[in-house]
Amino acid sequence: MMLYLKKWFVMTKVIKLSDTKAVIQRSNDEALIQLIEDGFVQYSNGNVEVPPVGYLSFASPPGDVHIKYGYIKDDDYYVIKIASGFYENPKLGLNSSQGMMLVFDKKTGEPCSVLLDEGYLTDLRTALAGAVAARHLAPVNVKTIGIVGTGIQARLQLRYLKSVVNCRDVLVWGRSGEKMEEYCRDNMLSDFSIRPASSIKEIGKQCDLIITTTPSHQPLLLDTDIQSNVHITAVGADAPGKQELDSNLFSRASTIVADSTSQCVDHGELFHPIKEKKISSEQIVELGSFISRRMKRKPDSITIADLTGVAIQDIQIAKYVYLKSQQ
Amino acid sequence: MMLYLKKWFVMTKVIKLSDTKAVIQRSNDEALIQLIEDGFVQYSNGNVEVPPVGYLSFASPPGDVHIKYGYIKDDDYYVIKIASGFYENPKLGLNSSQGMMLVFDKKTGEPCSVLLDEGYLTDLRTALAGAVAARHLAPVNVKTIGIVGTGIQARLQLRYLKSVVNCRDVLVWGRSGEKMEEYCRDNMLSDFSIRPASSIKEIGKQCDLIITTTPSHQPLLLDTDIQSNVHITAVGADAPGKQELDSNLFSRASTIVADSTSQCVDHGELFHPIKEKKISSEQIVELGSFISRRMKRKPDSITIADLTGVAIQDIQIAKYVYLKSQQ
Repeated sequence: MMLYLKKWFVMTKVIKLSDTKAVIQRSNDEALIQLIEDGFVQYSNGNVEVPPVGYLSFASPPGDVHIKYGYIKDDDYYVIKIASGFYENPKLGLNSSQGMMLVFDKKTGEPCSVLLDEGYLTDLRTALAGAVAARHLAPVNVKTIGIVGTGIQARLQLRYLKSVVNCRDVLVWGRSGEKMEEYCRDNMLSDFSIRPASSIKEIGKQCDLIITTTPSHQPLLLDTDIQSNVHITAVGADAPGKQELDSNLFSRASTIVADSTSQCVDHGELFHPIKEKKISSEQIVELGSFISRRMKRKPDSITIADLTGVAIQDIQIAKYVYLKSQQ
Repeated sequence: MMLYLKKWFVMTKVIKLSDTKAVIQRSNDEALIQLIEDGFVQYSNGNVEVPPVGYLSFASPPGDVHIKYGYIKDDDYYVIKIASGFYENPKLGLNSSQGMMLVFDKKTGEPCSVLLDEGYLTDLRTALAGAVAARHLAPVNVKTIGIVGTGIQARLQLRYLKSVVNCRDVLVWGRSGEKMEEYCRDNMLSDFSIRPASSIKEIGKQCDLIITTTPSHQPLLLDTDIQSNVHITAVGADAPGKQELDSNLFSRASTIVADSTSQCVDHGELFHPIKEKKISSEQIVELGSFISRRMKRKPDSITIADLTGVAIQDIQIAKYVYLKSQQ
């Protein structure tokens, strides 16, 4: 008899951006990072169902939509993310990024939650992936963190490095001096001591943990500028044509990690060194495999992580916000 | 200045099933049918962007999810539909069908509306497509309508025939006598005089407008049972292996219409006569083309329409409910 009442109890919970942010603010950084790490391990172990990304494009005004979806095989939920970029939105006072995440019951198909996150959770899960990469690949005692870019992703990446590295000394570089100044003064980053770099070269020379977050279409960090003991995480290149790192750098790297080998080789930073035969795809280790096989960074070497974003991150973060907002 | 205020005005409207039903109840049948007809015309004219359907499947309990999405090129919205079938749901007192439709602003990507329709709008738009087919293909004076199947689709199909044919005399056939009786007494169908058929053969012999709505995997309506002046609309076959009509019937048809030729040939009723070489795909006319070219039914002949369901129907009905619920 109870079973027949079930339909009255399942309600679709609509979670607004402000409520999502409140859940994240009262969360432990470590728990959020672990959530994404666990997701990568499940993904690389082949325990995640992730079909090809759905795609729509628009001519006027120009825009595109990506639909990412999937589930962990022994889990209770499936998740769909709709994320769009409309690059003329700022003219209207709107974010370029828009979208939502949807959480469904994997045993009945009932919609559990609509997260009207406006792209925030995508930014967050990308930054958390950067923290996972740094946790496993950064040198033991980072002396200076280098951040390339000054946007929201550049800020969130540094924000979530706080609990994985002890270093608080930061150099930031961006094309606009004004935006570098703004970055240095960001309240979210007040635990760090941040100085603007005089050039991208200075980042390469001074820093031993570098995060690149730009939409650049040409190499910014040159091989000749990079010291011999450094970890670099590149998160900017997520589409064909984008590139932040000199492909010669990859020839010198002791370890090359990808969030998803197939994606990174197809349209990430790794597209370039593979195409130019600087490395072979056999040299790439997937982040989840690196973690589950308990691999270690080789001391005094260059390591590189390429993050393009995988649906498992969306699945993990959407589920988390839904479950936490029930409490 | 006004432009910069825009972000404060766009709110995502969550529309529950009860509100969706209220919008449909106060709508004119004719307007709803025309909406779907217009969609088919746009689709067959190549004015609709409809990427391949996204798909997820689940093993335990068994279920699947289809993600259908797209937009009309010169329109203001894009639409995503998530529809799932979990066939053990009725044991829990839940509908097998679950899902939602999402309406987005095509110029900014902002989510305009979340329609928590629980599969209702899919049922409705399928029935409205049946009415469009009947409007253009039924004999001039239908004498007896035949309905094969007794479920929700069998009911909605008849419900929306009301405004496209004058006939009120109906024979229904289903495997369960009890369900046939329930069908005959359905309040939604009280404008019709409905009798249970003694056999599926009786439907074939007596009826000149037949709608088949079952998940059958073998032919129900045999070629030898069908009279020479009849229109048949088959809506049941929407996946490989399903079949309601004897494939010999197609050899006798003067006109064969498909909502989407590619879909119907791939996994609709038309898969079988094509595979068995009873007809060639060149004989198939798309419903939207049949309408826009102002084609007519050949008198005293057999015509057949195969409806598998196209994203343009979802786009049209979701937009409509969203816009009407704003009023």
